[in-house]
Amino acid sequence: MKKIIYPGSFDPITNGHLDIIKRASKLFDHVIIGIVCNKDKSNYLFNHTERKELIEKSIKDLNNVEVKKFSGLLIDFAQSENVNLIIRGIRVLSDFEYEFRMALMNRKLNDKITTLFMMPNEKYTHISSSLIKEVAILGGDIKSYVPDAILNDIMNKINEKST
Amino acid sequence: MKKIIYPGSFDPITNGHLDIIKRASKLFDHVIIGIVCNKDKSNYLFNHTERKELIEKSIKDLNNVEVKKFSGLLIDFAQSENVNLIIRGIRVLSDFEYEFRMALMNRKLNDKITTLFMMPNEKYTHISSSLIKEVAILGGDIKSYVPDAILNDIMNKINEKST
Amino acid sequence: MKKIIYPGSFDPITNGHLDIIKRASKLFDHVIIGIVCNKDKSNYLFNHTERKELIEKSIKDLNNVEVKKFSGLLIDFAQSENVNLIIRGIRVLSDFEYEFRMALMNRKLNDKITTLFMMPNEKYTHISSSLIKEVAILGGDIKSYVPDAILNDIMNKINEKST
Amino acid sequence: MKKIIYPGSFDPITNGHLDIIKRASKLFDHVIIGIVCNKDKSNYLFNHTERKELIEKSIKDLNNVEVKKFSGLLIDFAQSENVNLIIRGIRVLSDFEYEFRMALMNRKLNDKITTLFMMPNEKYTHISSSLIKEVAILGGDIKSYVPDAILNDIMNKINEKST
Amino acid sequence: MKKIIYPGSFDPITNGHLDIIKRASKLFDHVIIGIVCNKDKSNYLFNHTERKELIEKSIKDLNNVEVKKFSGLLIDFAQSENVNLIIRGIRVLSDFEYEFRMALMNRKLNDKITTLFMMPNEKYTHISSSLIKEVAILGGDIKSYVPDAILNDIMNKINEKST
Amino acid sequence: MKKIIYPGSFDPITNGHLDIIKRASKLFDHVIIGIVCNKDKSNYLFNHTERKELIEKSIKDLNNVEVKKFSGLLIDFAQSENVNLIIRGIRVLSDFEYEFRMALMNRKLNDKITTLFMMPNEKYTHISSSLIKEVAILGGDIKSYVPDAILNDIMNKINEKST
Repeated sequence: MKKIIYPGSFDPITNGHLDIIKRASKLFDHVIIGIVCNKDKSNYLFNHTERKELIEKSIKDLNNVEVKKFSGLLIDFAQSENVNLIIRGIRVLSDFEYEFRMALMNRKLNDKITTLFMMPNEKYTHISSSLIKEVAILGGDIKSYVPDAILNDIMNKINEKST
Repeated sequence: MKKIIYPGSFDPITNGHLDIIKRASKLFDHVIIGIVCNKDKSNYLFNHTERKELIEKSIKDLNNVEVKKFSGLLIDFAQSENVNLIIRGIRVLSDFEYEFRMALMNRKLNDKITTLFMMPNEKYTHISSSLIKEVAILGGDIKSYVPDAILNDIMNKINEKST
Repeated sequence: MKKIIYPGSFDPITNGHLDIIKRASKLFDHVIIGIVCNKDKSNYLFNHTERKELIEKSIKDLNNVEVKKFSGLLIDFAQSENVNLIIRGIRVLSDFEYEFRMALMNRKLNDKITTLFMMPNEKYTHISSSLIKEVAILGGDIKSYVPDAILNDIMNKINEKST
Repeated sequence: MKKIIYPGSFDPITNGHLDIIKRASKLFDHVIIGIVCNKDKSNYLFNHTERKELIEKSIKDLNNVEVKKFSGLLIDFAQSENVNLIIRGIRVLSDFEYEFRMALMNRKLNDKITTLFMMPNEKYTHISSSLIKEVAILGGDIKSYVPDAILNDIMNKINEKST
Repeated sequence: MKKIIYPGSFDPITNGHLDIIKRASKLFDHVIIGIVCNKDKSNYLFNHTERKELIEKSIKDLNNVEVKKFSGLLIDFAQSENVNLIIRGIRVLSDFEYEFRMALMNRKLNDKITTLFMMPNEKYTHISSSLIKEVAILGGDIKSYVPDAILNDIMNKINEKST
Repeated sequence: MKKIIYPGSFDPITNGHLDIIKRASKLFDHVIIGIVCNKDKSNYLFNHTERKELIEKSIKDLNNVEVKKFSGLLIDFAQSENVNLIIRGIRVLSDFEYEFRMALMNRKLNDKITTLFMMPNEKYTHISSSLIKEVAILGGDIKSYVPDAILNDIMNKINEKST
């Protein structure tokens, strides 16, 4: 059985993430979405548990996808899940450099780990969780960039923060 | 009449910005310099009004250029000014990626908006507002990088901050 | 009256080119499409006159767009047309670097020339004249990448060449 | 059963290719190495059959890897093999841009096709088939860059060509 | 006598830095490692003096290398040391752009200054001081990325901070 | 005595090359300009001997610079000259990637070889031998891009070729 981990912050999950998840769920037997929580990067909009709930709402119809939280090194999380395959989305050039550096580091730390890269649909190359938050905060319409199931949750959180 | 918006932080305006403004003022009938104010990015050296004054001092001899402040989404500002054309300078590769992502996002949010890109003179490819501030704070000479009319204002502000 | 030149090989014109032309025709009073003919690059699929005809077929409904052939330096062509504004599309990073180098060179050769850059719709970021020719030669379907009016002309030329 | 195609020219196969093949053979149930033959790119050092033999010599101990030749579009080859998954190695930035453009084009031509990317070991980031040929022709030592099993075949071919 | 300055934050020194230092010490008669201290970037893990001590521990066997602290502009430090040659490591693309911009700025500020660039061994292209700190904080093993002589100092500091 | 090799095609030498040579001649005791001749790349404008003469005309006032022709691998040339230091100019991003790959390959082939990189003056970032030839062939003015001493030689060669 081929298992793969799709790690990230998912603050919040976007349609670009969802596109990767859907494709991965067709290519592999089991997909674990790993939500990272780095204490020092404390400027998350949603906390660790909220981010998990938003993803779960967004992937209800995908049977072989599971959502887990982790902290610490990705390779340690992978090992504890008994998975040696990681998938990451690459949209643009700057992703490329960061992702490759991380993938190299992970392979150095544990040679059994392989990282695969996938492009999201080009409809999503210009979006990212942070850009979506910025647009929403400035009053722009983000409904085509995030899963329908969580649009209200995001808008409520942003309104709550800005008041 | 062809109107165009040149948006930015301008903290402070540099000779690279001025080069773009002068070229744009020859190519288009009317240029609106839009100074953005994002509340969350509160580490500006000059406040919103000061940045407007520094630009106005620097463009006194350009008749078809106007300076305005805005907050919120650029496309909303453009719409309120009845302008559908935006101009941005690109100096280096990393500019390119950021600018294209923003341009794509803006076009998604309002399909009538078009973003044009222009290179500043290569004399200015290595400078940016933040690099100029860094050099000035460390005691370097910035007089060839900022408009003559505002050199003293910048130096005074930096001296004031560091005491 | 604001005139602009959109130069290129157009071997053949693609929907990406057409997207730039349509946007430019709204932004400027007059658009001149300048088809370059470099004798040393003799591996064109269509000759200089055929490329002109394919563009003309594709832009029938654009009243302020004109198609001209030129050889020699772009800045000399611009001067002979009394135009000091050039527009170029940038899709990807490698475009960026080449285009900026050319724009710098043109500005050095004639300081009055300004080059503006525009992104085509992201639907077209992955296509180019040469990729389209390659796909068509290998038997792929190119109908969503070239103007409807010229699809048959392209397919006929490719069939003719390969027999 | 998860099948994947690893397409390329393989003129000749390098240790970088072999690194990708070995990792892929562990991650997927079956790997098909697809050797492309484009008639217009006739400056191959090894012909289509020779390239196939060199790969087969290099992968003798990999049971779930098969080598096939194809011409025409990659997506047509994939369909004829009943495979919808492609893997490509990315070593450097310029790979990235070319590969992503191809992957986008392939997905446009057939939406069921997904392309995955993998980094070869960083020991191999600086090598490519063409660089290896260049070094060998100039008298350099290439034995750490190509599979041991085919080193003599490459050297013989190069000596034969240069006399 | 050819002297050269190798400037940086060195928070802490890595094996990538050490590789550059060793090569530079063979190529030039005297190498000055210049440790910069920018007051506004106060999120250093090690203070200015500690960073100096870590470097000194790591280069004990290099006779023509000296370690100095400086604040202010690099070119002013270079002038006070009577050196007009600077060396910087470049590992990846994003380094390139930043470094070139700084080198251009330095040359503008003092035309006699020349900056040379060198690649560290590709074993070190994926590491940086900040990545090493991140890995160490998350519990990963960094012993192959930092000089043996200072591994304990780093681990002690990190344990101390996290308690 | 610190010796360095500056290798290239120099077809023809440009003011960008000359800027590197002048700076190198101040930084090192002896500079060897190595003109490469690759038989397979036979589309040189000037032959191997002519390229040597053009360089010699351009560097008459530099006493510690020598011009030599070589074929084969750069590292073999370096070894035969008893030099282990190479210098290369980097103007733009695409230079970077190619140069780094070559430098890595050279270091792999001979670990004692170190490659240093230097930027030419930003006045020259947009020029290259091939761009200069293209501009000259199309009738443009190249006098600010090539050494005065060889302008006539270049123009004569181009006129001769085009008749």
